[in-house]
Order: sequence, then C-alpha cells, then structure tokens
Amino acid sequence: MTPTNRELRLQTRPKGLLAPGDLQLSESPVPELQDGQALAKVKYLSVDPTMRVWMAVDSYLPAVGIGDVMRAAGLAEVIESRHAQFKKGDKLVGLTGLQEYVVIDAQSKFPFQKVPSIPFLSDTAFLGVLGMTGLTAYFGMTEIAKPQKGETLVVSAAAGATGSVAGQIGKIHGCRVVGIAGTDEKCAWLTDELGFDAAINYKHPDWKEKLAAATPKGVDIDYENVGGEIMEEVLNRMNLHGRVVLCGLISAYTKENSGPGNLGILIVKRLKVEGFLVLDYASRFTAAAMELGKWKMMGKLKDRQTVVEGLEKAPDAINMLFTGGNTGKLIVKV
Amino acid sequence: MTPTNRELRLQTRPKGLLAPGDLQLSESPVPELQDGQALAKVKYLSVDPTMRVWMAVDSYLPAVGIGDVMRAAGLAEVIESRHAQFKKGDKLVGLTGLQEYVVIDAQSKFPFQKVPSIPFLSDTAFLGVLGMTGLTAYFGMTEIAKPQKGETLVVSAAAGATGSVAGQIGKIHGCRVVGIAGTDEKCAWLTDELGFDAAINYKHPDWKEKLAAATPKGVDIDYENVGGEIMEEVLNRMNLHGRVVLCGLISAYTKENSGPGNLGILIVKRLKVEGFLVLDYASRFTAAAMELGKWKMMGKLKDRQTVVEGLEKAPDAINMLFTGGNTGKLIVKV
Repeated sequence: MTPTNRELRLQTRPKGLLAPGDLQLSESPVPELQDGQALAKVKYLSVDPTMRVWMAVDSYLPAVGIGDVMRAAGLAEVIESRHAQFKKGDKLVGLTGLQEYVVIDAQSKFPFQKVPSIPFLSDTAFLGVLGMTGLTAYFGMTEIAKPQKGETLVVSAAAGATGSVAGQIGKIHGCRVVGIAGTDEKCAWLTDELGFDAAINYKHPDWKEKLAAATPKGVDIDYENVGGEIMEEVLNRMNLHGRVVLCGLISAYTKENSGPGNLGILIVKRLKVEGFLVLDYASRFTAAAMELGKWKMMGKLKDRQTVVEGLEKAPDAINMLFTGGNTGKLIVKV
Repeated sequence: MTPTNRELRLQTRPKGLLAPGDLQLSESPVPELQDGQALAKVKYLSVDPTMRVWMAVDSYLPAVGIGDVMRAAGLAEVIESRHAQFKKGDKLVGLTGLQEYVVIDAQSKFPFQKVPSIPFLSDTAFLGVLGMTGLTAYFGMTEIAKPQKGETLVVSAAAGATGSVAGQIGKIHGCRVVGIAGTDEKCAWLTDELGFDAAINYKHPDWKEKLAAATPKGVDIDYENVGGEIMEEVLNRMNLHGRVVLCGLISAYTKENSGPGNLGILIVKRLKVEGFLVLDYASRFTAAAMELGKWKMMGKLKDRQTVVEGLEKAPDAINMLFTGGNTGKLIVKV
C-alpha cells in the first residue's frame, strides 16, 4: 500500500515572524520508486535560523519556491530502496524537507549521508553537535577566528546550537569565553554546565555594564550570531586588530529591507572586511614614500592638487571634501 | 619683532557640514621660543576627511578640544630655531594645526619630519601622493588588499587624494581598475590621465548598470572610501571570498549617530570582519565531525536539544528561534 505523505509547503513569504498559513500542510501520495531512488521515513527535522532566509530571498541557496515543500535538514530511515548506496534500515541525514517521507535520488545535488552507529552518541547528534550547526562552529572557530590561548572570546546567541559549540571550542583552545543569551536559565547552563567563564543576559537593563565587567581585557574575538545592537556593543569592547567571525545575523532575518547596515551579504558572499589605519605602519613610511616616489618619477603614478588660498578659507575647504569640490589632494595655501 | 599668529579654533562641534563659526579665527602673539623649540611659518595645510571626525568625536585620536587650534597636517618652514634637529630654512611636515605659525617642540608626540629636496618633486607632494594620503593608499593596497594580477578592483571616491593613488597602485599590480566619482570631469581624469579601465559617475541615474557593465567578472577588491549606498552596491557586485579594504566612510562623517550600520568602528579599531559558510568546508566534514565526536566523548563538549513533537509544529518551532524559545539544538520529532 502506498503511504500518504504529509508536507509543509511554502504558501507565502513571511513578513516578520511566520504567520499561520505561510507554511501550509498538504497531503499527497508517495510516488512509485524509480531505479536509483530510495524512500525514507523522516524521523527528526533540524530547525535552523537560515530557514527563515530561505523562505524570503535568494541567498547562498535559491529561495524556496512558492508551493514547494519547505527546505530543511533532517534524519530519515530508509524503508524501501532501489538505490545502489542505501538499503532498508539505513539512517541518513540530508535535506529531507519539512515532510514525513522523502524520496532520495542518486542524482541529488546535496547527497544524503549515512549516520554511523557510534556508542554513546544519539542519532540526532548528527543534526546538531556533529551536524551542520556543530560543524559551523568548528570551522568558524578553527578557520576564521583562530583562537589563541589567553584571548577573550564573546559569543552571541551563545545558548543556541552553534553558539554553544563555538564557546566550548574557545574553552578547548584556552580562551576566556563570555556568552550572551536571552534568559537567566540559558546563562546558568552556559556557565554551570558548559564551562563558560561568564554569561550575560542581554534582556537585563545593565547588560552592557556586565559585559564590560566580564571582559576586563577587552574582546579579541567576536563570534557573531546576532548582529544589530548586540553586535554593536561587542564591537565597542573589541581590542585593536580584533576579529569578528560573522556566522549569523539572527536579529535581521525577520526584518525586511535591513538597508545598508545589513551585513548579511558578507556571509552570503564570504567576504572579508578589514579596517586599517596608516599610523600603524609608521616605521615603514620612508621606504613606502621612496617606492611611491619611484613610481611617480617613472610616470606610473600621477597626482593632482586642488589648492585653496588663505587660512580663513580652510573651513570651506573642509566642506568641499563632502560636497565633491576637489579633485586629487586638497590643500590650503596659507 | 614678535609676529602675530592667526589660528582657527574649534568653537562648536559641527552638525552635518561645517557652519560659519564652528571654526573661529583668532589672533595671538607667537610665544617666545624656549630651548628645544623651533618656530615655523606654515606654508600649506592638508585638508582631509578625517578632520571632520576629529572635530566631532574621540576616534583613533582624541577629539579636538573646544577652544583649541584645529588639528591639521601641514608643511612649514623654520624661521627661527633653538631645536637640535631643525635649522632655519628647513621645510617640515607634521601636525601644524590650522594656523600661520607653529611652535615645534622636541618632545612632541607626533614629531615633524624634514622634507627632502628631490628634483621634479614639489614640496607639497609630501602632503599628498608621498604624504599621509598616498601612504594610506600604499599600505591599504599592499598590506590589506594584496591585489593579484587579473583581479577587478573598485575604488570609491576614486578622484580623491587616497582613491586616485589606490587605483593607480591597482594598475601597477595588473588589476582591472574601476573608479567611482561624482562628476564626469573627475571620471575623465581617472580614465584619460590615470589609466583607470573605467570610471562611473554615481550621480547618473543608471550608475548601477554602468558599474555592472564595467565589472563583467564581478569585483574582487573594494577599496572603500565612502560607505553607505555606494558601498552596498559594490558589495552586490563582489565575487565570493572578496576583500573589502575599509579605508574611509566619507558618506557617514557628516551624519550624527549613524547607528548599528556605522562601520567606522572597524577603522578606528582596525578590526577584521569575515563572513563564512560551512558549505565551503564540505570536503573536511568527516574529519571535523570526528574531532567534535572525540571532544564530546572526552566530556569537553556538551550539547542539549530542545525537541518539538509533530511535523505540524514546525512553523512554531521556526519562530522559537527568533523569540528565544530554544536552548541548544532545536529539532522536530516527526
């Protein structure tokens, strides 16, 4: 007997939080299996902030189409197979979608992976700590943050699936680790069970003072999952030459048109933004000026000056910079 | 006879563009020289966007005090000296301030430098192309951007003192260089005289299309001097794993309280922000999961799950992520 599938399909792109009906429950017969396919019963579904992005816009993956089964990762057990790799009883993780049955195709762009059976590890660990959220924390910390012993790490959304792992990896690397979360219970879990050095509930009115007190040597690494005001306050505590690992911006995902302040594009395109000041290179000014001078004399470097006459014209000259009045270097002849 | 000094003092911190009286002209007698001091006549003053920041807030330097002579770089000639290093007739660059005479002290925090006399180079080159703005372009390009042959570089405020040098350094390194400026004359200077491959006037209504046409292979490096909408549009053209050299944010300097979108702190603190996606590390997932699993079995890594029962509860579960309902990994049991 062909089972009936129940699935959640994207009906309307949400504004803000999901409203009833944005995802619509529907039923359909499970299709006949073709050669190269397997049918699996979905056991567990992973719920991740990135799903809200997939519902709204094209990002690192195309937006879910209207009427399509909502994209989601999940853990499923094979109940029938004409697939060369998978047999009945295999447990798999992959993009199951929000549904009860999934047809797994050999040609899928995102292939399913078999879950190894390991003592003391539950299957669902492969959706979390050993799955995408744990791996995200692992690579964000080891490849982007590169934590050094004694550095101070702040993690926002620290009690979430990724933040809780990122903070613990910071402890493994010998960092002072401070978590930011939204309830006292979460904060207690971070410090009492996970070994964070401090945890700050950002819903307390004095959380900024507490963050300052918990980071007496400033902040070297911001493992950022939230964005907005929380990120801004952590940036205020950063030390010179600190690193911000931009992992998520959950405060922005339920807002429309976040505007130029929206850093989401840095994640989608894996961009690196680096601020710098020329004063840090003072010891090399002479050598650099010699190279610039050489280029200038070779005709590879040209310059132009806009000259304003008279000290009393200096305020107008400053304004010219902001109204586009100068070409090249703007100077005042006194 | 003691000369009279004329100086511009900061009277009020500007809002927006400078208003008349924000800098107030005053006169005072030049003080008697002490041992270790030299008196110099200011010949040229450098006018730089960073001065607007110095007028408003503490940044990488403290804000100029109300009533103090406005801070500025300049070129001055020694007219009297009791200073061990400098003699009458020496030409110096340093922080002269907006005034006609400057007393140079041996104990100054920012020492003055002698301008070497080099054939074909005007003295004022040491305020521009061989001075702070040229050096800024040099270190921003060679240390932060690290341009590779064949890459596409976009420079905003490209006809400014720093942008025009940054773009030419990009050409020296074999990049395709596209400048963004605010008049057709500036754009013509960039392409016809400085050798930029293209220049876009952002005041033309179709500038975004022109930017796209000028960057057919996308953008690898954004040498950013402007911020705001111009930066946002360049980010839209960036290739995966591109680099943004955050040199200046001139569009923000005349705004108050730019809010969380203000990236100025990245410059002041020389921070690095890097977005990443776990999918880029797919080839290393197995090894990473093994290390996470090892830490978990050693008790160094703990996890918790919040489990919601029933497929039909998945939409509520997604919302829980944004309202703080879950601790650790959130999953739906189907």
